Amino acid sequence: MNDASSAPWHLTAPSFAEIEEAAKRIRGVLVETPLLESERLNARLGGRLLVKAEGLQRTGSFKARGAWNRLSLLSDGERGRGVVAFSSGNHAQAVAWAGWRLGVGTVVIAMPADAPTAKIERTRGWGAEVVLYDRATEDREALGRRLATERGLILVPPYDDRRVIAGAGTLGLEVVLQAKAMGAVPDALVVCCAGGGLTAGCALALETVLPAARVFAAEPEGFDDTARSLAAGMRLGNTPGATSICDAVQAPMPGALTFSINAPRLGGGLVVSDTEALAAMRVAFEEFGVVVEPGGAVALAAALSRRLPVADRTVAVALTGANVDPAMYQRALSLKTNGGS
Amino acid sequence: MNDASSAPWHLTAPSFAEIEEAAKRIRGVLVETPLLESERLNARLGGRLLVKAEGLQRTGSFKARGAWNRLSLLSDGERGRGVVAFSSGNHAQAVAWAGWRLGVGTVVIAMPADAPTAKIERTRGWGAEVVLYDRATEDREALGRRLATERGLILVPPYDDRRVIAGAGTLGLEVVLQAKAMGAVPDALVVCCAGGGLTAGCALALETVLPAARVFAAEPEGFDDTARSLAAGMRLGNTPGATSICDAVQAPMPGALTFSINAPRLGGGLVVSDTEALAAMRVAFEEFGVVVEPGGAVALAAALSRRLPVADRTVAVALTGANVDPAMYQRALSLKTNGGS
Repeated sequence: MNDASSAPWHLTAPSFAEIEEAAKRIRGVLVETPLLESERLNARLGGRLLVKAEGLQRTGSFKARGAWNRLSLLSDGERGRGVVAFSSGNHAQAVAWAGWRLGVGTVVIAMPADAPTAKIERTRGWGAEVVLYDRATEDREALGRRLATERGLILVPPYDDRRVIAGAGTLGLEVVLQAKAMGAVPDALVVCCAGGGLTAGCALALETVLPAARVFAAEPEGFDDTARSLAAGMRLGNTPGATSICDAVQAPMPGALTFSINAPRLGGGLVVSDTEALAAMRVAFEEFGVVVEPGGAVALAAALSRRLPVADRTVAVALTGANVDPAMYQRALSLKTNGGS
Repeated sequence: MNDASSAPWHLTAPSFAEIEEAAKRIRGVLVETPLLESERLNARLGGRLLVKAEGLQRTGSFKARGAWNRLSLLSDGERGRGVVAFSSGNHAQAVAWAGWRLGVGTVVIAMPADAPTAKIERTRGWGAEVVLYDRATEDREALGRRLATERGLILVPPYDDRRVIAGAGTLGLEVVLQAKAMGAVPDALVVCCAGGGLTAGCALALETVLPAARVFAAEPEGFDDTARSLAAGMRLGNTPGATSICDAVQAPMPGALTFSINAPRLGGGLVVSDTEALAAMRVAFEEFGVVVEPGGAVALAAALSRRLPVADRTVAVALTGANVDPAMYQRALSLKTNGGS
């Protein structure tokens, strides 16, 4: 458990000013991904749904925000030493890309051997050294720490780091500003949740710029650790052996830092099935012309399945990643839809 | 042939000021679609490729720009009478949507019976009355004029109208401004070309804001009327009976007004195969996370096939539409790629 009073600086919550600084840091390098709306979908849901197309982000996911912010803050000495990260794929690509752009000497990424092929290939494509591990038997955090110690590298955690969380929080800040430009004020923001970094960053951002709104964490069945932890008031892990096609949102349990931020702030957890995630991928294809990976579609799935009602209000959801193998995408497009709900 | 000296006002070229006014008119209603870039693709092409993700536009294509601008300029009396348009699908949806948003009483759209199912359904979904015609035996322009006369409707042409062209030109204006914000100055802009409205609007916009750049028209094989007409210096039609999966970019010949604008301004025509269009759809999926329909992918295909070289310069291309049936999209994803060029 995280004890805020004695935690090291990087394991404490970022201030709102740090999220604003991160927003300045990413400007001109990352994409200000559009906030989209479909009147057809609004009519179907009886409310206003705003969709953040974050799959258009550099490296195809929101992870570029945290990675760029963290790596931008490396000292010259740290940049020379290099970095190491562990990730199922999106944080991997984001750290590898940011390291490449910023001239970081060495980038090592520990990835599960069963990660989507495209994610592994693209991580290597940015010049990173990929170390594969067995998701079922190895502890990725321990592996990351060991690589950091043995090779003198800076560990860039996927969520439990205030600079990574501040970077992720820029997504929430953007949503609120873009919604305002569209004459909309979201009552809720739903984002996908694995370790909880995006959720935490957005919760901190909205606490300042839109305190009346609530942030919700969307998770796939079998990996609903945040939903259960929020309900229990303490960090609970997932049952080992669970499987889901949502490879991007599978963490063993909520992060210590992220949970300490999320617990008092989130509106709750929303759990969707793999089939609902696939259906949301298809809706994103039809209504918005954007590609979404299964894990990136869980927030939209939560709205479409009415787990978070959209009727008579304004709900923003983030489509957080587009890194999907063609075969999985074809599965979503082959789904029979009822055209109705 | 168009004779500018005696042509009615709407059949003469819009001024740059009209494009700027159209840009103001669409603000807050249409999407400022993002201009994307992939360093991986840049490395492969040896230059800088900027990609306008216009498939995220309202109704899924750039046609919303011209339709919104034209219908916004209807008088109250005209709005009450209603409009009629002929279109293979994207202009159809755009006019139907704009009519719905602006409270136009009657919207009638003549569409070819073999248009993609989704396009026909979505056009009807905005409350429009769809009249199907046989592409091989019927003259769509004559049909549109007859419906206008018989039912007292205002005809909204897909390209030969200065207000439609001014609306389409806002895409070119946006590309230049967005590129500037990214520190880029395009040497060329490639857009898809059927009747030539988008090409003409962009050529007029760039003539003022970026006169050193050239606009190119991309077309599918079998429908290369603009490329041949530009080479011949006169309007030439396509051979009847040609087929292409690029349903959105098939006009019988260049428009009279659009060709008079394009002939002295364009850098030339670029012709791509259906297979190259499919390959470009897949690259857009992999590199940008955006859905593109075959006709909307021809400009990207022209760059990827090096018909317009990107090496050592900056080229902007527009992905102009995302309205594709799942089966056709799956065909693009099933293409074997060589991963290389």
